[in-house]
Order: sequence, then C-alpha cells, then structure tokens
Amino acid sequence: MNYRLLKACRLQKTDKIPIWLMRQVGRYLPEYREIRNKLDFKELCKDAKKVAELSILPVEKFDLDAAILFSDILIPLDSVGFNLEINEERGAIIKTISSKEEIRKLEQFDPENISFVYEAIGEMKRILNKKVPIIGFSGAPFTYACYLIEGRYTRDFYKTKSIMYNEEDFWNELIQKLSSITFVHLKEQVNAGADVIQIFDSWAGSLSPSDYKEYVLPYYKDLFSKISTLNVPIIYFSTSSAGLCNLFREIGAHVISVDWRIDIGEASKILGNKIGLQGNLDPSVLLSNKKKIEEKTKEILDKVGSRLGFIFNLGHGVLPETPVENVKFLVEYVHSYQSHES
Amino acid sequence: MNYRLLKACRLQKTDKIPIWLMRQVGRYLPEYREIRNKLDFKELCKDAKKVAELSILPVEKFDLDAAILFSDILIPLDSVGFNLEINEERGAIIKTISSKEEIRKLEQFDPENISFVYEAIGEMKRILNKKVPIIGFSGAPFTYACYLIEGRYTRDFYKTKSIMYNEEDFWNELIQKLSSITFVHLKEQVNAGADVIQIFDSWAGSLSPSDYKEYVLPYYKDLFSKISTLNVPIIYFSTSSAGLCNLFREIGAHVISVDWRIDIGEASKILGNKIGLQGNLDPSVLLSNKKKIEEKTKEILDKVGSRLGFIFNLGHGVLPETPVENVKFLVEYVHSYQSHES
Repeated sequence: MNYRLLKACRLQKTDKIPIWLMRQVGRYLPEYREIRNKLDFKELCKDAKKVAELSILPVEKFDLDAAILFSDILIPLDSVGFNLEINEERGAIIKTISSKEEIRKLEQFDPENISFVYEAIGEMKRILNKKVPIIGFSGAPFTYACYLIEGRYTRDFYKTKSIMYNEEDFWNELIQKLSSITFVHLKEQVNAGADVIQIFDSWAGSLSPSDYKEYVLPYYKDLFSKISTLNVPIIYFSTSSAGLCNLFREIGAHVISVDWRIDIGEASKILGNKIGLQGNLDPSVLLSNKKKIEEKTKEILDKVGSRLGFIFNLGHGVLPETPVENVKFLVEYVHSYQSHES
Repeated sequence: MNYRLLKACRLQKTDKIPIWLMRQVGRYLPEYREIRNKLDFKELCKDAKKVAELSILPVEKFDLDAAILFSDILIPLDSVGFNLEINEERGAIIKTISSKEEIRKLEQFDPENISFVYEAIGEMKRILNKKVPIIGFSGAPFTYACYLIEGRYTRDFYKTKSIMYNEEDFWNELIQKLSSITFVHLKEQVNAGADVIQIFDSWAGSLSPSDYKEYVLPYYKDLFSKISTLNVPIIYFSTSSAGLCNLFREIGAHVISVDWRIDIGEASKILGNKIGLQGNLDPSVLLSNKKKIEEKTKEILDKVGSRLGFIFNLGHGVLPETPVENVKFLVEYVHSYQSHES
C-alpha cells in the first residue's frame, strides 16, 4: 500500500508529502457530471457499486494518496427521517426539529438501513487492493445539530445558538444523540475497511471560542475518545475556525484540517508537534493558472517546512468550475516539491 | 458631548466603557418595523429627515455612546448605476460587472446624487446637539468588489477571487475606482459632521492571509492614509477574520473591530497597545437571557481588562429577533461594569 497518508497521520516521515482533495469526486470531473445527469444524488449514493467506482476514479486519474468514500454527511440523518434533498442552488436541505420531544421520537439509527455505504467501502477495498488507504467520514455533532435545527446552511445559525443558550437539556440530548449516530456510522465504516476517518464539522467556525469550549468541546472529548478505540487515525475538519485552533488541540483528533483563513505556519505552531495538520489551499486558487497555483502552493509547503505529520489538501472542497488539468498539476507539484527537498 | 467613544478611539482613559451596536437601528425595534412597513428601504434612505430621526432613536432609548447613520454601504454603488435591491430573504442584491471595460464605462461617483446621506448627518448633528458622536461609514473596496462581481453574498466569492488571481489589471482598476468612491463618500460625511467613521469590510474574512496581503493590504494602506487626513478616527470592521488580525495592524486604522470568532484577549494581544479594539459579542447571545448575556459579556470585559482603547460592540449587527429589553440590559451592564472596576 501507499502508506504516505497513514504515516503522516502518525507523525512519521514520508518520502513525499501526501495529498488528497476534499470533494475530489465532484462536478469538476466530466465522468461525475455524466453519471449525475442520469442519476439523482440520493439514488447514486445508494448504488454501492457505482459509488465505489466513482470514489476510486480520482485515484486512477491523479496520483492521489487516498480515496475518500463518495457520500454525504447527511445520509445517516436522512435514514432516521430527515428527508435529505440536494438543491443545486442552495445545497443540502433537510427537515428540522424544534423540541426535545422530537428528538425522543426520532427513529433509532440503524446502520442496516444505509448498508449501501459500508458495502461501497468493501467494494472500494476490493478494487483498490491496498493501492491507497480509504477515508471514511461523518459529520460532527455540532454541524449535524445546525442542520437539524436550521434545515440548511445559514449565515448566523442563530436558531441553533438560541437553543444552545436557552435549552440546556434539549442541547444535551441532541448532541448526545448525534454523537451516538456519528460513532456507530464511523464504526461500521471502519469495520467495512476504512483506514482513516475524517469528521466534518464544517460550521464549528460559527462559534466563539468561549461557546465552543462550553457547548461543544466536552462532548467531542468523549466522542473522540470513543472513536479512537476503532484504532484508525481521526482527522477533524472545520472552516472559518482560525480562532478555535488552540482549542482543537484538546479534542483528541490525530490530525486537524484547517482552511485557508489561517496561515499554515501559524496553525502548525499553535497545534504543536504532537498533532498532524492538514490543509490549506483556497480552492479558488485552482481557478487560476499554473504559475499562481505553484506560487500559492509553494508558500504553504515552505511554511510547513520539515514538519512531520502534514497532509496537503484544500481548505474546502474542489469547486465545480475547477479545470481538471489544474488538479493534476497541483498533485504533481506537491509530490515533486517533497522530492526536491529531501 | 459624551466623549467616551472618541476618547477610546484615541486610546485615552474613559469613565465607563463606551458601547454602541452595529445595526442598532434595525428590525428588532418596533419603531423601525413600523416605518419599514410603510416605506421601501431605498425610499427611506433618501428621506434625510426620517433617516436622522431613526438614527438617533436608539440613543434616546438606550444609553448608547454613539449614533450611527442609518444607511447602507451600497448606497454609493447604487448611485453609479448598480441598482440596489433589498431582498428580505437573500439580503442586498445589485447588478454585476465582469470586465475592465465596464468599470471604465461606469458613471463618475458624484456625492451630489446622494446628498440625502450628508443632509441626514447634518440633521443628526442639529438634533443631537453634541449629545453623542456621530458615526459615518462606508463599505471597504474589497467587499465592494465582491458585491460588484458576485452581485450578492456568496459562500465562496470564487468569481471575485478568480478575477483577482487572473486579471491583475482589472483588479487594480476596480480596487482603485472603489477606493476613490470610498474616500469621497467618507469625506462628504465628515464634512457634514461625522465624528468617527467605520469602514465595513464584511467579507475580508473570505481571504487567506497571503491573498489579503497581496491583493488588498497595499491598496488599503494608501486609502487609509488618505482618509486619515480627514482627521477623524477610523474603525475597520470585518468578520471571520481571526487569521488576518496581525495584518490589520498595518492598515492604518485607529480601531480594529473583530467578531466573536476570536478570543478578545487574543485579539488585544495581537493588535498591541497602539491600536484600539472593538467587539465582540456574538449577536446570538442577545437571543438568550439576562444571566447568559451577563456571563458572556463579563467574560469579554474581564479579558479586555484595563486595556485603553476598547469599545464594546457586537461582532456583527443586532439580529431582527432580538428582544429590546436585552439590548437595554446589555448597555446598562457594560456601563455598570466599568464603574465597578474603577
């Protein structure tokens, strides 16, 4: 197996800097667009064979160091009755809840109902035959809570925060419930063959450090300690969270994924040398040209220097408008940089 | 006059901590909702007398230390042909441009066309009779550029960044043009009687530190040095910009306004004692209860400690759902805190 990603997660030296890209399967790929023109998003997610093929596609096209399962963080919530819809303009939309009673009435999350996810991982394992590690993933409880309360992305998440501040019991039950779904979903993925897991807390950056510490961190410490019994590296992802970085040290993740809104050298310093670091190119840079991509990528790599435990990634997913040749160039550049240095 | 705000901007000691709130005139006020039920937003902006009355209203209702002009950052752009619409669900929407030629064809910004803004300030001056200082404001060139290219708030601003990376001349002309509009608009407000100005760079936080340094900061240094000839304190506002805070030291603003996504003690340390600091309560906290408001406000004030040059504010505008009595409580609490300490 190409062990670069796993080694970096364990803070070990690698021959080249490992790279994978969030949303490396996505609309920028003509093959993906073709499939999506025929199949609705949820239908596609349920087709384990197609999902496995798609998830592996970018690893075949580019020299990427990992394949991430193609799915959506909301698939487990959809399965307990939240009715996920993907709206091209507004993103994911789900049904909402507004009381403690509704949480209690929720169906029990049964991974059997989304067995297609775990089957897809098994299928990926078979096809990849240890070529590269497989990344499984889940949403994080806070981001899930935002979805359940707001129904979709909003600029303030003020309804979520209002419940967080005013209804301690509701919040506690909600986050506990979501932590348990997260854990079971991840456990099944690891059992099916996921080698690494990434937890997407896309909206954690909407919280003040004080609120993150009070309403989120204690739950995460418990959750991550439970997840670490699965014995695979855990990557914790968020955006707009430069001001939370020092709190991320306490979560219990092996790797912290940061977006471009923080200087990578600064993030590396804050996290220290006991935690891995992933990031952090602005996906918009891939809409520019090779010269600019090289300049901005080199800047990141120079700042990271010889740090152990670095995984190159974007700060968020590949944009649909991204030219395929720019992705190819980026992957090659990151791999070649490392060999120049060593 | 109540000089607290001006003194804080000049890093001088104040008897109490000055406080004003972004969007202190807004939908949370029944008086505002009543006027808006009768008048369209742009119509209202053009009525200098009503604007002056509205702008002063929160100072009469609460013991606030400043009155900010009621207007919109997009009013100057509207006047050069961008056709501002306020959409209740999606916020402000304007026409867009996509080429250098379109910038050149733009009408010259003539403050005469929006004289109602400056008249409103004159009227505020007359009514307030030096009770509290008047804050004038403008958008910042980067945020204006995002509006002109995207037409409205987006999550990525990737079109803007694509032009920024790929079309150096276009970007340069655009930012120069917008800097000149910003300057003229602010100059007229100061001439009309504004005592302080705030520059809203709401979307600066979408940039990486590297890009902010390359594509924005050099223009801002020029602009702010020109604005400082107007001899009033300048407050620079942005959101989601924890990772840019150390670069803000170089802009040339007297006060940096930060949102809740950074620990205020951390921000104070980064900015040092030569620059004032404004912030940073999450507006969502005002949707909670007095106990929680006190707890979260006290935490900020305790962290700021005896720092000279601190202005209490929210990290963004008052939310429409905010109970009026919570605003009243906050203002009283901030003022009473200071007297406990001294």
